[in-house]
Amino acid sequence: MSRRPGFELKTPKGTRDWVGSDLAWREDIFQTISSVFKRHGGTPLDTPVFELKEVLAEKYGEDAHLVYDLADQGGEICSLRFDLTVPFARWLAMKKITHVKRYQIAKVYRRDQPAISRGRLREFHQCDFDIAGLYDPMIADAEILSIIAEVFEALDLKITIKINHRQILDGLFAVAGVPDEKMRSISSALDKMDKMSWSEVKREMVQEKGLLEEVADRIGDYVRRSGDIYEVLQFLESNPGFSANENMKAGLHDMRLLVSYLEALDVVNKVSFDLSLARGLDYYSGLIFEIITKPPSGNVAVVSGEGIQSSEQRKPEPSQVGSIAAGGRYDSLVGMYGKRPIPCVGVSFGVDRICTVLEERREKAQKPKIDVYIMAFSGKDSNGFLLERMMVARQLWDAGIRAEFAAKVKPNLPQQFKAAKDLPLAVIFGQDELSAGQVRLKVLLPDNDENDTKDRGQLVSREDLVEEVKKLLKITISN
Amino acid sequence: MSRRPGFELKTPKGTRDWVGSDLAWREDIFQTISSVFKRHGGTPLDTPVFELKEVLAEKYGEDAHLVYDLADQGGEICSLRFDLTVPFARWLAMKKITHVKRYQIAKVYRRDQPAISRGRLREFHQCDFDIAGLYDPMIADAEILSIIAEVFEALDLKITIKINHRQILDGLFAVAGVPDEKMRSISSALDKMDKMSWSEVKREMVQEKGLLEEVADRIGDYVRRSGDIYEVLQFLESNPGFSANENMKAGLHDMRLLVSYLEALDVVNKVSFDLSLARGLDYYSGLIFEIITKPPSGNVAVVSGEGIQSSEQRKPEPSQVGSIAAGGRYDSLVGMYGKRPIPCVGVSFGVDRICTVLEERREKAQKPKIDVYIMAFSGKDSNGFLLERMMVARQLWDAGIRAEFAAKVKPNLPQQFKAAKDLPLAVIFGQDELSAGQVRLKVLLPDNDENDTKDRGQLVSREDLVEEVKKLLKITISN
Repeated sequence: MSRRPGFELKTPKGTRDWVGSDLAWREDIFQTISSVFKRHGGTPLDTPVFELKEVLAEKYGEDAHLVYDLADQGGEICSLRFDLTVPFARWLAMKKITHVKRYQIAKVYRRDQPAISRGRLREFHQCDFDIAGLYDPMIADAEILSIIAEVFEALDLKITIKINHRQILDGLFAVAGVPDEKMRSISSALDKMDKMSWSEVKREMVQEKGLLEEVADRIGDYVRRSGDIYEVLQFLESNPGFSANENMKAGLHDMRLLVSYLEALDVVNKVSFDLSLARGLDYYSGLIFEIITKPPSGNVAVVSGEGIQSSEQRKPEPSQVGSIAAGGRYDSLVGMYGKRPIPCVGVSFGVDRICTVLEERREKAQKPKIDVYIMAFSGKDSNGFLLERMMVARQLWDAGIRAEFAAKVKPNLPQQFKAAKDLPLAVIFGQDELSAGQVRLKVLLPDNDENDTKDRGQLVSREDLVEEVKKLLKITISN
Repeated sequence: MSRRPGFELKTPKGTRDWVGSDLAWREDIFQTISSVFKRHGGTPLDTPVFELKEVLAEKYGEDAHLVYDLADQGGEICSLRFDLTVPFARWLAMKKITHVKRYQIAKVYRRDQPAISRGRLREFHQCDFDIAGLYDPMIADAEILSIIAEVFEALDLKITIKINHRQILDGLFAVAGVPDEKMRSISSALDKMDKMSWSEVKREMVQEKGLLEEVADRIGDYVRRSGDIYEVLQFLESNPGFSANENMKAGLHDMRLLVSYLEALDVVNKVSFDLSLARGLDYYSGLIFEIITKPPSGNVAVVSGEGIQSSEQRKPEPSQVGSIAAGGRYDSLVGMYGKRPIPCVGVSFGVDRICTVLEERREKAQKPKIDVYIMAFSGKDSNGFLLERMMVARQLWDAGIRAEFAAKVKPNLPQQFKAAKDLPLAVIFGQDELSAGQVRLKVLLPDNDENDTKDRGQLVSREDLVEEVKKLLKITISN
């Protein structure tokens, strides 16, 4: 029954355990995010960790090979969820829901190359808010961008929301002269501009994807205009070639509406129009966006003119973790499951990456896990009062007070004080106190360092103990 | 890209979605349980949903075939976690931790026959508290039983804790005359007494497992004594055959200690000594227990004398969901991974079954998801004030107030009142109010039914809006 020789005891590749204060800290971040979701009327949803494999099929394009499958053990064939969007779409179609704001915070699974130090894991949390339903154009989209702004305000993190529009991208490619059959591959090459220089991207377009060099140069010229949303809109609107393209016209109309809504919602100053943003997933159909931790800087934003010329400046900084949230509009996904399409727009927060970013300024001070340590004076001649320590513990537990005692029949006093180190309070008693129906209550913090075992604390009757403990905890905690 | 004809859109067998108030209600139950865990100094742990297959190997005896495996897609071979105990033991061994109280609330996976109406699923939550470390005997065991009592007190659920001891069971089988090689199979037959009558169990022992009938009868005679812990202890201690058995002697010593501790912790009145309790899992080595929702009833407890005679009385009641928590001591499990054994004792709460039991008395009233609905008076001649509604929304969101508005450019008033139905407050404005820098604030609850659209509410300046909303929310919520 023992383990095989040479078997290394570990968690599976790209996964890790979370424990104690790290976990509590992460839960606090989840709490902060979900409180923003609740302000917007979000309904929580929890779906199974695996879905029928067929539900996930044909949703992830080039990334499909990263899906974890369950073994065929007879019965249904299933896969671990890859994101929270597809389970949400499956749920909408299955329950025939036409209008909802739902949020979900849960783990997703991708057989990707892990980089744990940069918060890139195979098992990681996503934190999604989506608005489903047919509404007037761009209102829900604007609310999603407002939620993004509010979440990062609540987390006190400066961000830039890079936005683009699938129809604008399609129009731009068409006007530049990209043949229809190359649209997807050129789009996915362009999407690499957050990792590669323009010259590398251009080389991929021309040499690997067979695009004419002059077409690639036109694309390069267009996406150089990325940055300030008003200027990019003006550039696109004033170009007669663009305004003749139906996709471009529709996309620009959406973007003008969006800008007016983002002004009302006080979000527009966080937004940068990035014409190179393409987003990998197949299902996006309108607005798309990615959030990075860089602050916005007017015209010279994510994809600056110079950046396109210089390959060096495009390399990610060491501390950069890539996008920390992303999303967009996907109006056709739900229709792949049900009879009717349900328009949706939503955002997914990469909370593990957000944690990696926030980690740097996290206060590492450990909070005590216990309020009161219950200890006994026990000489050679006396017992360790274990039963009495248990009774006091039960009394405190029943009052919701976090209490502990040594799991020994006869612990000595130095052992007990050592265990109580860094805790706020101690309840101490021996035969004298017990005979009088009393215990001693001693404040250990904040000057616990001296371990002054001679200060025996104040005498309190058993009946008043809970009240006195609560009173003292309020004082020590407020210190 | 559309779904295959005949493909039924569903969640995988034995799984389900949770949504909205159901999910929030379940989270509240988790919260109640984990607050008890925190009182006892528990450290939270979160482990990956899958483990290396080797970590799970040889831990689950007859149940091993219920483990979900991941497909072999190259790289490590993994399985979904089957419980939270094995990941905990793996973590202890991996991190070389010798003393900890840890808790974990997470989903586990078993390819079992599901029965969703009875809360029996293939994906279900467990909620575990375990104490690892070498302490004086039975103190940690008693604390675990106190935690069980406190959890169900906090959930206001009457329970019986059925306890037994693996060494007592071994001694009892030895004295009854069970050959060593039949110990495990007879133990697992006996464990079915919560589902089958004694005559059925006896038939399995004699006809399937080849036990002598007189030995089976002796076992039946012993386990008939189950019930009141003091009486069972006295019966076992006063029998000279038992007291000569080393296993029995050690087990009885543990149980006597435990009883004194349970008295101090005020838990003994919830305990019933069930000599038929065996627990399926291989790794238990000492105290074992199972919690059922029946109240204790003195001598005539879980396995009554009559129960053994009558096959009818042993059938589970329709509303019964089986055990709602279970656990025990497992001193050798961690040693299977590391060099040193770490003694452990712990409990696992079956929270989905607990939810099924609590469901009956749950208040189904929906709480409003939104505090304030923002609406505009918009005639034919005016616009719908969408931008202004957005600005007010952002103002309320920033103050932490849950607010919503119609995602329409020109919504009409009846539509907006309909959307605001069952919400506490409405902010309403038209051109007049806006020109004066004001809005109207209208209390919708509790007499919202009349949809009195003529009461236009009180006038409030934009600057005072947040404060006034907070004031009114306090009043409407306290109503």
